[in-house]
Amino acid sequence: MTVGRPVPPPLGKPLPDTSTELSRVAPDEGRLVPALGALSAAGGLEALTLARRAPGPEDVEILIQFCGLCHSDVHSTRGEWGPENYPLVPGHEIVGAVLRTGTDVTEFSVGDRVGVGCMVDSCRNCEACLEGLEQYCENGMVGTYGGTDPRNGNVRTQGGYAQTIVVDRRYVLNIPDGLDAAAAAPLLCAGITTYSPLRHAGVEEGDDVGVVGLGGLGHMAVKLAKAMGAGVTVFTTSESKREDALALGADRVVNSRDADQMLAATKSVDVIIDTVAASHDLNPYLRALRRDGVVFQLGLPSGAMPPVDPRLLIRRRAAYAGSLIGGIAETQEMLDFCAEHGVASEIETVSADGVDHAFDRMVAGDVKYRFVLDTSTLHSAGKEADA
Amino acid sequence: MTVGRPVPPPLGKPLPDTSTELSRVAPDEGRLVPALGALSAAGGLEALTLARRAPGPEDVEILIQFCGLCHSDVHSTRGEWGPENYPLVPGHEIVGAVLRTGTDVTEFSVGDRVGVGCMVDSCRNCEACLEGLEQYCENGMVGTYGGTDPRNGNVRTQGGYAQTIVVDRRYVLNIPDGLDAAAAAPLLCAGITTYSPLRHAGVEEGDDVGVVGLGGLGHMAVKLAKAMGAGVTVFTTSESKREDALALGADRVVNSRDADQMLAATKSVDVIIDTVAASHDLNPYLRALRRDGVVFQLGLPSGAMPPVDPRLLIRRRAAYAGSLIGGIAETQEMLDFCAEHGVASEIETVSADGVDHAFDRMVAGDVKYRFVLDTSTLHSAGKEADA
Repeated sequence: MTVGRPVPPPLGKPLPDTSTELSRVAPDEGRLVPALGALSAAGGLEALTLARRAPGPEDVEILIQFCGLCHSDVHSTRGEWGPENYPLVPGHEIVGAVLRTGTDVTEFSVGDRVGVGCMVDSCRNCEACLEGLEQYCENGMVGTYGGTDPRNGNVRTQGGYAQTIVVDRRYVLNIPDGLDAAAAAPLLCAGITTYSPLRHAGVEEGDDVGVVGLGGLGHMAVKLAKAMGAGVTVFTTSESKREDALALGADRVVNSRDADQMLAATKSVDVIIDTVAASHDLNPYLRALRRDGVVFQLGLPSGAMPPVDPRLLIRRRAAYAGSLIGGIAETQEMLDFCAEHGVASEIETVSADGVDHAFDRMVAGDVKYRFVLDTSTLHSAGKEADA
Repeated sequence: MTVGRPVPPPLGKPLPDTSTELSRVAPDEGRLVPALGALSAAGGLEALTLARRAPGPEDVEILIQFCGLCHSDVHSTRGEWGPENYPLVPGHEIVGAVLRTGTDVTEFSVGDRVGVGCMVDSCRNCEACLEGLEQYCENGMVGTYGGTDPRNGNVRTQGGYAQTIVVDRRYVLNIPDGLDAAAAAPLLCAGITTYSPLRHAGVEEGDDVGVVGLGGLGHMAVKLAKAMGAGVTVFTTSESKREDALALGADRVVNSRDADQMLAATKSVDVIIDTVAASHDLNPYLRALRRDGVVFQLGLPSGAMPPVDPRLLIRRRAAYAGSLIGGIAETQEMLDFCAEHGVASEIETVSADGVDHAFDRMVAGDVKYRFVLDTSTLHSAGKEADA
């Protein structure tokens, strides 16, 4: 590997080595690290060696400790959202420690506990970026994986199922002391994705929030809405989740397959956070809205959603809305809020060997409520490689 | 007719008389008046005699001068929104002069120019009513026609295609001097229905508003949005409406059947007022929204709408919303706003004989932009009748 030369990630070829030790590199040198990624839509995940660039003047190099497993990771690695560029290393719920900082980085020091969420760059110039809403960057945010990174030679970005990542300081978050590192990881996507619409809707004490679906996002929505002082109703198709929902703090659980329960829930909530990523009928949830209520759909089904009945919107001045993660400043605000209110994700830690199986369990809804990859278990696929 | 006894409207039986003179009645007596209504879904409109109650202490009796023809009138009289109770006298865009006032009415005097819109009562006690949003009354507002009127013996309400109407003072509007009586009539429905969502969305100078459909509601949306200082884009499927839209004040006209024009309109407007009452695909209009934009659907198609693509909502934090007329206070605000800004409806006056044909022309989209019934042309169907 040539010192000082930008190393285009990923190498993408499995190399026969199992060392997981962090390679020693010169300050201006990139790094080859173990990672886990897909080489095709059908092949599952395998150990890869990933080349990370040397930190530029404004970059932070992070030793990743934990990375949450998001449904997006499943969709992307399996090509369910359309053609992908392989190899693809997923992961955008990243928590770790600062390993190196660029010469112009003053806000982070080696050893600081930091996080990275769903984006690693944006244009920084458009109205959205200037308003701190980088997720809606008019020139397109750079996704943490699967994106094209114009400030770094237009390489494809590769995510957090890896030993390290190098990210511009502007897109690096502080992980407050009060948060457990593993349980904080899912906050970077599942947390902010539910926090942002709750805040955008102005949820406060006395409001009633409905949560549809009790998975990775849904369980965060319950905890966050409760921490904001709202009453929380969980809508679930699965009677078996009733006790779980109550244990998470829900005030009421409605079996959405029970017509009587749904009728009784008419006009009972102000905001609904719908986290279901499969195609489903929203009209029963619109009926549960009070006047000026809003349903935020956060999950993205691969198929079309059934039509919304406009009468349900018109008669309540209600809205069917979307929301996409959150801006960097709001993500930091959310992390601080979680630390202050003792909110974190309920997690099950998995090793690198278990991620394929964990994906299958996520698809089956068999996780309470988020898998987190312990990146110390990544197999190094090569002691050394030249990019 | 027994003096002082509530007279249940309507008689509903055509009587052989053509007198249009206003009957002389005692102060505490109801009145039999000529009207135009449907006796069945298929029979069109015919001259009826309608019994109006004597004004109660808080009622205002209004000599109707003009009543706008709304698409709802067509749907209702023709039974297109489901089974109706016939006879049915439509009309909820009513302008006239005060004829009698109840003993406790102090805010209106005989001869005052007044209006009545889409509702004549509501519970007055629920949160919506107390907030001045009577249109969302949690116990159901009383529609100006086709409603059930609990404070008046649960009679079916009958609308403004009639010589008079009797309405509780709380639901009677002042028509400011600056407004032409006939051109003001459509403000009571088409005006407030478009004004309310524009205000609710906080439209102000510098915003860009899209208007879908250039009919009775659409042309009001153009005028009102312009008067609020917004730039206005009209989306129309009909190239022939381009000049009309510009003449009404639109800044830009987009032919929604032209893919290039629609592409160029991507992320160009903040609020869309969609007035099309036929089933149509909203996704092209969602694409035209900027971040945090909202499409208000105001028309109610009889069939289902095509599904909305949630990606378009998620990527813009956009919303698909509904809105229903406006509250009484807001309706008065709208009338005052129109008088101040010289806004009124573009109308074509029709006589009672021409209403059936006007309905057909409305269905065909052949009106610029609102028909208004001159109620002085109503045929009296009976000089006298006992209820």
